[in-house]
Amino acid sequence: MNLILLEPADFVDSDRVRISDRRHLHIVQVHRADIGDTLSVGVLGGRIGSGTIVRMGTGELEMSLILDRDPPEPLPVAIILALPRPKVMRRVLLSLTVLGAKRIILINSARVEKSYWQSPFLKNEAVRSQLLKGLELAGDTILPQVQFRHLFRPFVEDELPALCRGTLALVAHPQAAERCPSSIEGPVTLAIGPEGGFVPFEIEALRSSGMDPVSLSARVLNIETAVPAILAKLFL
Amino acid sequence: MNLILLEPADFVDSDRVRISDRRHLHIVQVHRADIGDTLSVGVLGGRIGSGTIVRMGTGELEMSLILDRDPPEPLPVAIILALPRPKVMRRVLLSLTVLGAKRIILINSARVEKSYWQSPFLKNEAVRSQLLKGLELAGDTILPQVQFRHLFRPFVEDELPALCRGTLALVAHPQAAERCPSSIEGPVTLAIGPEGGFVPFEIEALRSSGMDPVSLSARVLNIETAVPAILAKLFL
Repeated sequence: MNLILLEPADFVDSDRVRISDRRHLHIVQVHRADIGDTLSVGVLGGRIGSGTIVRMGTGELEMSLILDRDPPEPLPVAIILALPRPKVMRRVLLSLTVLGAKRIILINSARVEKSYWQSPFLKNEAVRSQLLKGLELAGDTILPQVQFRHLFRPFVEDELPALCRGTLALVAHPQAAERCPSSIEGPVTLAIGPEGGFVPFEIEALRSSGMDPVSLSARVLNIETAVPAILAKLFL
Repeated sequence: MNLILLEPADFVDSDRVRISDRRHLHIVQVHRADIGDTLSVGVLGGRIGSGTIVRMGTGELEMSLILDRDPPEPLPVAIILALPRPKVMRRVLLSLTVLGAKRIILINSARVEKSYWQSPFLKNEAVRSQLLKGLELAGDTILPQVQFRHLFRPFVEDELPALCRGTLALVAHPQAAERCPSSIEGPVTLAIGPEGGFVPFEIEALRSSGMDPVSLSARVLNIETAVPAILAKLFL
């Protein structure tokens, strides 16, 4: 936790919060902080700054806040990701949040196992807890928007063209002749397939909706490696 | 498993192997392959190509091989990594292997918890199994060399200068003013700190041994995200 995330319910005054949950435990046990110590804080959906501990009670503490900065810039990217194995999805959601992606759409694909859609890791609360962890790590406050689309064709035919419009629209495809571009400034819509890639009819459908296939490496990359690698190549 | 890895003990003739372990199970249950089917294969430490199933027995199968290609090019990088939490280390070893790093040195640092050094995940067999999984994923055959250095100063003062010589020697450091370069062709020696970064005296020691601090992003990245991101920025 590089940032203590604050929510509206924590505020006892306009510049003062009271905290009594796992964040309190973390501040006491990991930061080993005491009265007078200052920590990085941010308001969920809002500004970041510093919080100085002004009171330590039993199972709670109070901080006085100075919120003087905006959170770091988001990446101008919408990610469309074939639903990975749920444990992998959790780690990829964390990575995407840490890197600053703010729109993530998880879709079906021929190579996505049906059972993945039943995982408890797809539930709102499980997803949200990964996103919060990512924000705390990266020092960010803006929650990514995560959506699930169980049907490939309706999504790709009906929603994707509008998403792609006015953006550089790419699908990561190991067999593509075109190399992935770098140092992009404008908005990108990026589709990433399952391990093994999208099947040919899916690549054709993505292409018809405006996406250009690009490859990153001669090697086959696992999803957890491919996602940070391609975002770094595009934006960092 | 995008590649079935073969070892000397599998060979029953110069172009024929017999397989009876988890690889046999994988070929039968995941690939659902049968006599006449062809799979990607590679000889550990050697060439890659295709294997055609010529016999299916009870609990074993035989393949006839054509080994006509070299494995993919390695990344010209030596990675020096502050030992992460052991579960994270396993995933980072996989990522590094998938990306093609061939020399990995895990070192101590002020922010590495002492208990990490006792983990069973650091044992030879546990490390080797992660490396093999990475090779199978990436379609590679060359095992990375993984070393552990329990003492920071002797490593950085006595071994690191020779490693850095003749290479672009960089330490990833979130506070560095210099940005990480991209599209590097020559050899790189790259140090990556623990989450929270190397402490100031460690950065000074790394600098004295020839490393230049560079930063990748204004955001704090977790190690599993930072490692593929920085290698992609440098080489892909």
